[in-house]
Amino acid sequence: MKLLDLYAKMKGELNQIEQELERSVSDDHALLRDASTHLLKAGGKRLRPVIVLLAGKFGEYNLDLLKKVAVPLELIHMASLVHDDVIDDAETRRGQLTVKSKWDNRIAMYTGDYIHGKALSIATQLPNPLIHQILSKSLVQMCIGEMEQIRDFFNTEQSVRNYLLRIRRKTALLIAISCQLGAVAANADRVTANRLYRYGYNVGMAFQIRDDLLDLYGTEKQIGKPPGSDIRQGNITLPVILALRDTNIRGQLLQEIEAIRKAEGFPDTKRAIALIRESKGGNLADEMASRYIQKALRAIEGLPDIAAKKNLIDIAHFVNKRNY
Amino acid sequence: MKLLDLYAKMKGELNQIEQELERSVSDDHALLRDASTHLLKAGGKRLRPVIVLLAGKFGEYNLDLLKKVAVPLELIHMASLVHDDVIDDAETRRGQLTVKSKWDNRIAMYTGDYIHGKALSIATQLPNPLIHQILSKSLVQMCIGEMEQIRDFFNTEQSVRNYLLRIRRKTALLIAISCQLGAVAANADRVTANRLYRYGYNVGMAFQIRDDLLDLYGTEKQIGKPPGSDIRQGNITLPVILALRDTNIRGQLLQEIEAIRKAEGFPDTKRAIALIRESKGGNLADEMASRYIQKALRAIEGLPDIAAKKNLIDIAHFVNKRNY
Repeated sequence: MKLLDLYAKMKGELNQIEQELERSVSDDHALLRDASTHLLKAGGKRLRPVIVLLAGKFGEYNLDLLKKVAVPLELIHMASLVHDDVIDDAETRRGQLTVKSKWDNRIAMYTGDYIHGKALSIATQLPNPLIHQILSKSLVQMCIGEMEQIRDFFNTEQSVRNYLLRIRRKTALLIAISCQLGAVAANADRVTANRLYRYGYNVGMAFQIRDDLLDLYGTEKQIGKPPGSDIRQGNITLPVILALRDTNIRGQLLQEIEAIRKAEGFPDTKRAIALIRESKGGNLADEMASRYIQKALRAIEGLPDIAAKKNLIDIAHFVNKRNY
Repeated sequence: MKLLDLYAKMKGELNQIEQELERSVSDDHALLRDASTHLLKAGGKRLRPVIVLLAGKFGEYNLDLLKKVAVPLELIHMASLVHDDVIDDAETRRGQLTVKSKWDNRIAMYTGDYIHGKALSIATQLPNPLIHQILSKSLVQMCIGEMEQIRDFFNTEQSVRNYLLRIRRKTALLIAISCQLGAVAANADRVTANRLYRYGYNVGMAFQIRDDLLDLYGTEKQIGKPPGSDIRQGNITLPVILALRDTNIRGQLLQEIEAIRKAEGFPDTKRAIALIRESKGGNLADEMASRYIQKALRAIEGLPDIAAKKNLIDIAHFVNKRNY
């Protein structure tokens, strides 16, 4: 099944999630509502809710309960985008103005805080404290990931391991617990929840590597913002770390990165990107992403052969080929 | 009993809280640990933990359980200070550099997020979901309060009601739930928890009114930063709203506030403060604070006459006279 077909099949459930997302941020304060809704309306793939619902199929599927983890997980993702945009000084996201540029950094900071709080207050309506624990621990890990990213800006000496630890916290963890919490909220057994967690973790790792590849190999149309924005802000991603290992390229690439670091305004990244593309960094990163996808598929091999399993397999393949 | 005697009497318990506070932020990431510890070391009255412990005396007192609400409540308070300092562009707090000035706004934003997450992940170790609900809902309300404050900057037409709603969310709520959660964590009955909540709420309202009075009537030595910082950043507090009602002063005071709003750099607030001091705004605000203290004392009248009740009464009187 293609991913669009999956979304079409899940339309009824996803509409309910969408309504709940809107409702969750609309009853408090006009400015917070506007800022949060602005972000919601910009859309997104709602990958985390989709995964929660599919994971829930491996237990006692109950949409009303699953909503109370699906909505918080999407909200936490959104809050991290709002705060990211402050850090990155990003003007647009998905072709729309960011909260920080439509309003300002102060509004963006409190909008993120507010959405975090909302997310947790929805999840805590569920009586299972394990869910609350997993969510709040992940919030902590995500912050650490963000801090590591800031610390490692323009650090051209960082290792692949460094990078992987960072994207694990920044991205993979939230997708992993989306799987896990869907299973936990549906009362699935522990083994099932752990398998789904491993699936999500590995899909999440591949997802972020693909995202980082796209920023170097995609067009502005594909990615919704100018390419090279990672390297422009100093975020040294996997293809760059791997390109720097290529001794034919290393010296020049280091110079280009240093020039970007020192530049004022909006530095040109064309030459740096061309150098990276000359190297094997892209291919190697691509292979790593594929290996994570293989691990994701292996993690759920033992699960019962229901339709949701097929959907999770499709999502994994889709993430591996993603080019938008 | 004087407040210092109370702290001396509780020294053993408060030391444990202090250790737990330090431990809670020290095991993750060096930069987050440094930024969080910097904040911790700056001290503070630890009012929220003290109140949690006293409230816990009205149930089955168990320090290990009470810690798991006392520490999160102090952490949430700390996180709000870190984010406040970003908004206020504050260089110092309690005579120390703020996180945003020692590091930068980005570090301060994620340090706040991190401390929030830590707070919730400690509290969710307790098995009672009601505690998690109360905490996360309060986080939402605190954000709304902060947003209202930003929205109302330099709004000289705001009502006393506006102000009271704002400080309720911004300050009183966290002190109220400190009382409530101390009682809940100690398995006190519902009536007791509600009485303690009302005590905390009213003490919190008085506390913020006194804080706002101090900023206009205190000396730099008393308050640890230059007086008039509220009005300088546009925060129109109760004494100012009340002073603006005085027709002899209103016109001049509006002009002064407008001049502060338009000024660049570090505007002089001396004339505005002198005008406010000429009015009855200070006296009226003072009376309101005292009325909240009376309400706080009435709220706990029906509680058993144990030592903790006497301590809460002392704290209320202390808040009412506070001049630091």
